[in-house]
Formats: sequence, C-alpha cells, structure tokens
Amino acid sequence: MAEFMDVHNHMQGLSAADLTAAHAADLAIQGEENVEFKKAWADPVSGKVFCLSEGPSAEAVQRVHERAGHLADEIYAVPLVV
Amino acid sequence: MAEFMDVHNHMQGLSAADLTAAHAADLAIQGEENVEFKKAWADPVSGKVFCLSEGPSAEAVQRVHERAGHLADEIYAVPLVV
Repeated sequence: MAEFMDVHNHMQGLSAADLTAAHAADLAIQGEENVEFKKAWADPVSGKVFCLSEGPSAEAVQRVHERAGHLADEIYAVPLVV
Repeated sequence: MAEFMDVHNHMQGLSAADLTAAHAADLAIQGEENVEFKKAWADPVSGKVFCLSEGPSAEAVQRVHERAGHLADEIYAVPLVV
C-alpha cells in the first residue's frame, strides 16, 4: 500500500455539500479497489481539490474517482511525509 | 486564521532527510508570521511537494517558505475540508 495525493483542477464553485457528496461517493465504492480516501481539501475559487488516499496503485485510486464521476487531473505517489 | 495547501513543483530527487530539513526550517521561523505548517507530502519522482498550513494569509505562508529558502510555486486557501 502507498499514499497518494491527487489533484482536481476544475472544481470552481464547489460547495461544502458538493465536497461532502463527492467524498461520500468515493467512500461508498473504495473498498472494491482496496483504496482508502483519508481527507480532501478544496479551494472553490481556483477550483483546486487535493485528495489524500492510501491504496495499491495510482490506477486504483483513479478507478474509484472515475466510477464516482470525478476523474482526477493529476495523481502523485507521496512516499515522503513529514 | 485559514488553512492553505501550497505546492512546490521542482523538488525532483528530494530525500526523506531533505524534506525533514526543509520542514524544520519552516517550523523554526513560522511563529514570527503566526503560521503553523502541519504536514507535507512529497513525490521525489515528479518533484511535487504539498504543504498543509494554517495562518493569517497566503502571503504569510509564502514569507515563511521564502525565508526558509524554498518559495512555493502555488498557494491555495482551502476553506473546505472533508
């Protein structure tokens, strides 16, 4: 298992309820890919959303996001944490 | 106070020790700007580093990073967290 940070670049105008709903959609199916979405931070002005997850691969993380209806624009393995 | 996620784009080859040292340099002076760096995640392959902080403004966050010798390439206020 590894940690990943993925980035969505076009979520301008996202509300707290939108973020909660999007996160819930990930949580509902993440187990099928052995992924755990841990946290997400959003800036509705720039449209950036950063999602922290743990899983077997970037592809598995993306499959959860894709099936939940919000494909990530970028995904990075983040093996170093401080 | 607000939460911020800042991004460094050119930290290719960063080691765990490099990240620890860079973070320590931020922590050493952050109090002067009323900023608290909470966590950082790094991908030495792509060179991306994501730093989560709390502070009075993006400018204050950037001043800490600048004085510590590692200017952020992007800084986003992240008022929504889930």
